[in-house]
Amino acid sequence: MKPVCLIIGAGAGIGGNVGKRFAQAGYHTVLCRRSNKEGLDTMVQEIEQSGASASGFLLNAIEPGSIENCVATVEADIGPIEVVLFNLGAQIGDRSLKETSPKAFEMGWRLATFGLFRVASSVFPLMEERGKGTLLVTSATAAVRGNRGQHSHAAAMGGRRMLCQTLNAEFAPKGIHVAHIIVDGAVDAPDTLGKMLGPEKFQKLRESRGLEHDGLMLPAKMAETYFHLAQQHRSAWTHEIDMRSFSDLAWWNH
Amino acid sequence: MKPVCLIIGAGAGIGGNVGKRFAQAGYHTVLCRRSNKEGLDTMVQEIEQSGASASGFLLNAIEPGSIENCVATVEADIGPIEVVLFNLGAQIGDRSLKETSPKAFEMGWRLATFGLFRVASSVFPLMEERGKGTLLVTSATAAVRGNRGQHSHAAAMGGRRMLCQTLNAEFAPKGIHVAHIIVDGAVDAPDTLGKMLGPEKFQKLRESRGLEHDGLMLPAKMAETYFHLAQQHRSAWTHEIDMRSFSDLAWWNH
Amino acid sequence: MKPVCLIIGAGAGIGGNVGKRFAQAGYHTVLCRRSNKEGLDTMVQEIEQSGASASGFLLNAIEPGSIENCVATVEADIGPIEVVLFNLGAQIGDRSLKETSPKAFEMGWRLATFGLFRVASSVFPLMEERGKGTLLVTSATAAVRGNRGQHSHAAAMGGRRMLCQTLNAEFAPKGIHVAHIIVDGAVDAPDTLGKMLGPEKFQKLRESRGLEHDGLMLPAKMAETYFHLAQQHRSAWTHEIDMRSFSDLAWWNH
Amino acid sequence: MKPVCLIIGAGAGIGGNVGKRFAQAGYHTVLCRRSNKEGLDTMVQEIEQSGASASGFLLNAIEPGSIENCVATVEADIGPIEVVLFNLGAQIGDRSLKETSPKAFEMGWRLATFGLFRVASSVFPLMEERGKGTLLVTSATAAVRGNRGQHSHAAAMGGRRMLCQTLNAEFAPKGIHVAHIIVDGAVDAPDTLGKMLGPEKFQKLRESRGLEHDGLMLPAKMAETYFHLAQQHRSAWTHEIDMRSFSDLAWWNH
Repeated sequence: MKPVCLIIGAGAGIGGNVGKRFAQAGYHTVLCRRSNKEGLDTMVQEIEQSGASASGFLLNAIEPGSIENCVATVEADIGPIEVVLFNLGAQIGDRSLKETSPKAFEMGWRLATFGLFRVASSVFPLMEERGKGTLLVTSATAAVRGNRGQHSHAAAMGGRRMLCQTLNAEFAPKGIHVAHIIVDGAVDAPDTLGKMLGPEKFQKLRESRGLEHDGLMLPAKMAETYFHLAQQHRSAWTHEIDMRSFSDLAWWNH
Repeated sequence: MKPVCLIIGAGAGIGGNVGKRFAQAGYHTVLCRRSNKEGLDTMVQEIEQSGASASGFLLNAIEPGSIENCVATVEADIGPIEVVLFNLGAQIGDRSLKETSPKAFEMGWRLATFGLFRVASSVFPLMEERGKGTLLVTSATAAVRGNRGQHSHAAAMGGRRMLCQTLNAEFAPKGIHVAHIIVDGAVDAPDTLGKMLGPEKFQKLRESRGLEHDGLMLPAKMAETYFHLAQQHRSAWTHEIDMRSFSDLAWWNH
Repeated sequence: MKPVCLIIGAGAGIGGNVGKRFAQAGYHTVLCRRSNKEGLDTMVQEIEQSGASASGFLLNAIEPGSIENCVATVEADIGPIEVVLFNLGAQIGDRSLKETSPKAFEMGWRLATFGLFRVASSVFPLMEERGKGTLLVTSATAAVRGNRGQHSHAAAMGGRRMLCQTLNAEFAPKGIHVAHIIVDGAVDAPDTLGKMLGPEKFQKLRESRGLEHDGLMLPAKMAETYFHLAQQHRSAWTHEIDMRSFSDLAWWNH
Repeated sequence: MKPVCLIIGAGAGIGGNVGKRFAQAGYHTVLCRRSNKEGLDTMVQEIEQSGASASGFLLNAIEPGSIENCVATVEADIGPIEVVLFNLGAQIGDRSLKETSPKAFEMGWRLATFGLFRVASSVFPLMEERGKGTLLVTSATAAVRGNRGQHSHAAAMGGRRMLCQTLNAEFAPKGIHVAHIIVDGAVDAPDTLGKMLGPEKFQKLRESRGLEHDGLMLPAKMAETYFHLAQQHRSAWTHEIDMRSFSDLAWWNH
């Protein structure tokens, strides 16, 4: 039986590409995303046509019980989850405090912090019994510094990072590897950046900074590092790592 | 008319002592706490008997509208709020992930992160109109590192710190000073540490580390630094500061 | 006998103003700087004319034995040093790696890191015997992030910050307070910024950002915080603090 | 012609193992260490007997010109250096300030900070012309926090980290990848930990925490991550990463 890699937040960017990478390496990948059944099916088909193995679920992570049921279903019907990628973002663009409704602020937390808590609460008891497992967490620069207009996002991501540390402190000695991955740059991803900018602006950005310039982070290339982290020997685990394009300023430089 | 200093979380530790310090300096201090009307009244009386000026409110910060109403009432009945101390803690002691219910996890956020968001959303538009104001935020080591068993607390405090940064980024140029104060040690406070440990253990700790040893942080002494921060000239504002007893290891040392 | 405050790096900016502040409060201030005997004498006279007490020394900190002799002389001839401000900068402007000679790189370390080590090695044994003392260390953003062109400065300041932490870990329990003060912005100081920019550019900057705009940090105002740090009760010491103008972006925002 | 991987600090721990890993992958590895010609020759032979390719040099990095000559010789006689591992440590064990001589303090900087500056100054102009290159820098927890007794080591490592950031800021856009690798734990390395502890204590530690417990970091396993970093696509470079054994507390937890 193939080990299972569960992707929570499997759009056409990091999530989908990490899913493909693990599938290529012999994992059965379970792709979960909130909407776009068609896109999801296409991704599953692509993986299967390449000879690898995948399933897809629509999952509304905000809904009570959704993540918990998904984990239970996958464990029951597919197999033991060995790797989880928590890849839900909560970037809503820059908004002044006045424009940030209590609801928007709460939504950021619910997706990006509480969602991770629920994933860990669902999967870690199972991994703990098996004495091993990996949780890869996509994070953002907002986890380490709060910029103007990022009230909801930064508060959610700051909480996410600290939660990764408390999870690591409790579960690393039990054989569960938690890696917090700071994505410090724009990703060449049509489902997130593309939607935020709109198709035209996104295409322009790709032409000016992306494509042969490599100024946008290529999710297929990022996936190599995600995969590597899950293969690290337990005597040499990484808990925190950052990533950005060579041509981008690091967040601490300006 | 005296400038107003609003204390959210005015127990017998940091909150009460900061309140007294501002009152001594000529502010009208408004003390808000969740319970113990008697303790609250005593604090107000003590301040008034010393010739200074104070009011007290019971405030259940978790309740929708509570903080918002409190701010509106103070502004209408007492005067313009010049300084706010956000002093709500969310430490519930060390709990494993299994012992951390979703409700407890959410409660930490609701008090420690969302509460701050609500305070800022209520007060900052008023301060912005007046072109000045100060928000002092008591924070904890858990805001910068997540220890074992601190899932709820660290996630909440990590969010709090990032929120302070986003608030500062938007409002400092408008004359509003946000200071994030990392309290990196045990405070000699009967209402928080005292309650967590119980009276006997607390007394023992005071005798072994506190009192003439100064190994517990004295809230009346800490209040001097809180007060100083609110007096800094706008050309020289502090955004982040830490505090601990001389005999305590800093959180990064071990 | 007045307590002594020793200022190493006493130009017309932070150093001189901190010196004045301590003198006003009843310390005998010893001002040390590398050159400009006239400027030094004027500062000493100003302090004395205000009824306070000061001395001045020319001190070439880079020279072997210079700091050590200065400390010994002050202790022998003036009195026990209670507070030291280490205020030597090592900013040489932005230079590419190619333009940074090994000598320039070493000079940065020698002044900014090794100088601090020598000060602590000279003064701490004396303070330790007396069971108390304070070391205030002016630091820079370069201590927490390395920007382009800052090879020498950032390496020196990064070393300085870590040294402050090791000093604090060893000496705080012995009653010696080490405070690392991150000055995160341009200071309205003719001897440093003024010299780096030249008189015309400096005056323009003062007119556009400084003066009534308060966009340059006013050293006389900063001195209040330096002074406060030295007065903190030992149960509530600050080890790290940052400062910047209200209108400046924090280093982590861009 | 094979690409060249230059290892500065090639003992039997991280340095040697990273060297082997690159050799296995088709690089010609150049191993440099200060002493033990026999050990060095053995390592070179082992690599060659496995069908891979290596050379060895004795290099006293502290000596003026030594690093510079080594780089020039390798470029002239072997080939263009594509990857450099800077792996010189400067840990001298815990020493109080009194026990830390100015010479010992300076030696730490000379090896760990200035050595890196010299390596970059020698190699980067060549890499810049070729538009690519990788500098892997082994670092330590002391780069991010200064513990008691670590005056020399922490000051040197704090400088090293900031220097990595300034190098990255200048050279990443030119295609040169700098990775700062925080080794946050004890490495199962006879040449460093083994020598510091002595053979008996080292063996005991290996039995109690190392070997099948994996509580000491295995350099052969760490080498996988070093190698991965050098293979990252330029759209997804890591600048900072930490590593520790699963059973070890992270430096921020205690």
